[in-house]
Amino acid sequence: MNTPLKGACVIGQSGGPTSVINASAYGVIRTALDNENITAVYGAAHGIKGVLADQLYDMSQESADELHLLLNTPSSALGSCRYKIADPDVDDTDYKRIQEVFEKHNVRYFFYNGGNDSMDTCNKISRYFAKSGYECRVMGVPKTIDNDLFGTDHCPGFASAAKYVATSLMEVYRDARVYDTGQITIVEVMGRHAGWLTAASALASHFDCGPDLIYVPEVAFDMEQFLTDVTAIYKKNGYALVAVSEGIHDKDGKLIAEYGGGPEASRDAFGHAQLGGLAATLAAIVKEKTGTKVRGIELSLLQRAAAHLASQTDIDESFLSGKTAVEAAVAGESGKMVGFERDMSSGKYVCKTVLLPLEKVANFEKKLPLEWITPEGNNITKEFIDYALPLIQGEPNRALQESLPRFANLKKVLVK
Amino acid sequence: MNTPLKGACVIGQSGGPTSVINASAYGVIRTALDNENITAVYGAAHGIKGVLADQLYDMSQESADELHLLLNTPSSALGSCRYKIADPDVDDTDYKRIQEVFEKHNVRYFFYNGGNDSMDTCNKISRYFAKSGYECRVMGVPKTIDNDLFGTDHCPGFASAAKYVATSLMEVYRDARVYDTGQITIVEVMGRHAGWLTAASALASHFDCGPDLIYVPEVAFDMEQFLTDVTAIYKKNGYALVAVSEGIHDKDGKLIAEYGGGPEASRDAFGHAQLGGLAATLAAIVKEKTGTKVRGIELSLLQRAAAHLASQTDIDESFLSGKTAVEAAVAGESGKMVGFERDMSSGKYVCKTVLLPLEKVANFEKKLPLEWITPEGNNITKEFIDYALPLIQGEPNRALQESLPRFANLKKVLVK
Repeated sequence: MNTPLKGACVIGQSGGPTSVINASAYGVIRTALDNENITAVYGAAHGIKGVLADQLYDMSQESADELHLLLNTPSSALGSCRYKIADPDVDDTDYKRIQEVFEKHNVRYFFYNGGNDSMDTCNKISRYFAKSGYECRVMGVPKTIDNDLFGTDHCPGFASAAKYVATSLMEVYRDARVYDTGQITIVEVMGRHAGWLTAASALASHFDCGPDLIYVPEVAFDMEQFLTDVTAIYKKNGYALVAVSEGIHDKDGKLIAEYGGGPEASRDAFGHAQLGGLAATLAAIVKEKTGTKVRGIELSLLQRAAAHLASQTDIDESFLSGKTAVEAAVAGESGKMVGFERDMSSGKYVCKTVLLPLEKVANFEKKLPLEWITPEGNNITKEFIDYALPLIQGEPNRALQESLPRFANLKKVLVK
Repeated sequence: MNTPLKGACVIGQSGGPTSVINASAYGVIRTALDNENITAVYGAAHGIKGVLADQLYDMSQESADELHLLLNTPSSALGSCRYKIADPDVDDTDYKRIQEVFEKHNVRYFFYNGGNDSMDTCNKISRYFAKSGYECRVMGVPKTIDNDLFGTDHCPGFASAAKYVATSLMEVYRDARVYDTGQITIVEVMGRHAGWLTAASALASHFDCGPDLIYVPEVAFDMEQFLTDVTAIYKKNGYALVAVSEGIHDKDGKLIAEYGGGPEASRDAFGHAQLGGLAATLAAIVKEKTGTKVRGIELSLLQRAAAHLASQTDIDESFLSGKTAVEAAVAGESGKMVGFERDMSSGKYVCKTVLLPLEKVANFEKKLPLEWITPEGNNITKEFIDYALPLIQGEPNRALQESLPRFANLKKVLVK
C-alpha cells in the first residue's frame, strides 16, 4: 500500500463549476507531471463520462505556460458532467467499463474534482476497485461554491464566490439607494440547501453596504413575516436590500421560487430542482403587496464564474488541495478527500490540509450552523464574518490581454 | 463674460448612475475647491431636486482623502433623481425657485452630471438664466453607460460598463459550455434605444469567448429569424451564447420584453418603459421552441455599479471631464457640455476634451452606426472593436478593506 505505484493518472472535473476549480485541477496536473512515479497525466473529457467514453486528453501535450493560466481560468477546463453513477452492488456496468479503460491506459491514480455528488461517485469507484482488486488509488479533490462538503472547514470555490457576492452587494447597495424615491432590491444567490454563499452577503453589511435582511434555506421562510420585515425597513429608511438563497422554502418545504404560480421547476439528473427566478417571483409579490418600486436581481452564473474577483487565498488553497491529493496518493493513500482544517493558534488564519475518508464525506451536506443565523431567521451573526473574512483575502494576479481576461486555452489532444 | 466670476458652485448628479460618475463629480469638486474664484463648493442632494429643496452639502466639510475615494466609488454619491423639468417658456416655477436658491447662496457656477435628460435640464436652466439675466455659468458633465450623447466620441461611464459586460461574458461563456449536454444562454444588457453597451459583448467574441449572436435596438428584431439562427448555431456547436439589448423590439416597435404576455411595462417620469425580464422572456420562448436547456441572465444593476472592474482610462477621462467643466466655466464658458474627441494622429489613442453647445446635445440620442452591425443584424463588426478597445484599458487602483471595496463615505453636511 505505501509503495508508490507506477502508472498513469486521470483527473476529472464534475458538477457545477467554480471560478477556481481549475486551480485545483492545475494542482493535480502540475504535481503529477512533475512526479516520477506518474507515467502519464490524462484529463477526462467531461468527468466520468470521458472515462466511460475513453476520451482522455494528454496533459503532457499542453504548454507549461498555458497550464499555469488555469490558476485564473473559471469553469471546468476539462469539461464537466452531471452523471449519476449506479450503486456498484446493483449495477456494475459502468465500473467494469471504467476499470477496462483504466487497465488499457495503465491508470493507477484517479483524482475527481467536484462537490457532493462527485465525492459520491469517487467513493463508489474506490469501493468497486477495492472489491475488484484493481490497484488504483482514488482521491477526491473538493470544489463547491455551496461550501457544503462534510468534514472540511471550508471548500475551494466558496471563498471566491463569497467575495463576488459581497463585492457585488456592496456595489448594488450604493446603486439601489441612489434615488430619493425609494426602492426595495432583492438579490438571489445560489444555494439549494445550504445558505453559506447567501450568508456571504453579510460581509457587505459588515462594512455598512449590505443587505438589511438575509434568508437562507436552513430556516423556513415565512412570507407574511418577510413582508412585515421588509416593509418596516422600507418605511424607516426608504430603501431595503434583501439577499435570498435560491433554495428558500416555506415550513411545508415548498420552494418560494414556485410561489409565482409558474410551472414546477424542472429537475436535473440528480433530482435537484433547476432553480432560478426566485428574485423575480419575490419582487413581484413585494411589489403587489407594498406598491413600492422593487427590483429583483439574480446573480446567476456570474457568481460562480467571476475569476476576476477570486480570492487569492482560495486560489492558493485550491492548488494546494490538488497537489496534496497527488502527493498523498503517491504516498499510498486512497479513498480520501482532501479537506481543510483552520489553525488559528498563531493568532492569524492558517489553513492545513487533512485527508477525510470519502464514505464520511459522500452525500452528507454541511449546513450553515443555526447559531450563525439570528433568532428572527432573517440575518447572519458576527460568527460567520469571523469565519469567512480570512477566506476571501488577496487579489488574484491574473493575466490580461488588452485589459480583458487571458484564460487558458488547452489543446486537448486525445490519447489514442 | 471672460472675467472669472466670484461665487459658489453647485454640482448635481442625475439619471441612472455609473461606476465612474463620482470620478466626474470628484473632478468638479476637487478642481472647484482648489480654485480661488470659487468661494464655496456645494453638492446638491439628489440632483436638481436638491437645488429646488435647498438641500446642499458643503463639500469643504469633507476630508480630502474621503473625496479622493470617489474615484473608485460607484453610483451617485450625492444622490440622483429622475425629474422632468418643465419648459421654462411654459412654466417657470422651478426656474424661479432655482434662481432664488442660487441667489441665496451666491451660486455662480452650476455643474450637472448626467445623461441625455440631464443635459436637457441643464440646457433649460442655462436658457432661463440667459433670459432672466442671473449671472450663473452652467456646464454639463456627461455620464451614461448608454454612450448615446450626441457630439462626443464616447461618454464617461460607457467604457467601464463595457469592460464589465465583456469580462462577464467571457467568464459566462466558459461556464455556459462546461457540460456535454448543451445549453443556450441569453444575456440581457442595458440599452433602451442604443446598442453600444450590448455591442461591447463583441469584445469578448474578439478574444474567442463571446456571444455567437448580438442583437441591438438599432435593428428590428425578427423572432422567427432569431430562432432559426440560434437553433443553427446550437445544432452545429452544442452551445449558443446570445447578447441582447433590453430595448430590442420588432418591426412594429413592440418590445420583445413584452412578448411574454406579461403586463405592460410600467413607465418612469420621462415616459421610458421600465424594462427588465427580457432574458427570461426570450429564454422561455427559445426553450419552448427548441426543447433545449436555456438560461437567461440579466446583468441588471451589476453592469453599471461594477467599480471593481472599471476602466482606468474611463476613470481618468471622467475626472478630466469634471475638471475641464470647472476650468472652462471659470474662463467664461457657459451652456456647454464637455465632450471627447479621439486623436489617433500619434498612432495611438489620445482623448481630448471639447466643449459642445448644450442645445445641440440635449435630447438627441446617438445610435450605434448601422454599418457597425452585420448585414444580418445579428452581430457587430470589427470597427466597433477598434473603437471600444482603447476605452476599456487600465485596471483601477481601488482602495480595499479586508479585500472588499472601501468606498467614499461622505459626511454630507447640509448648508444652512
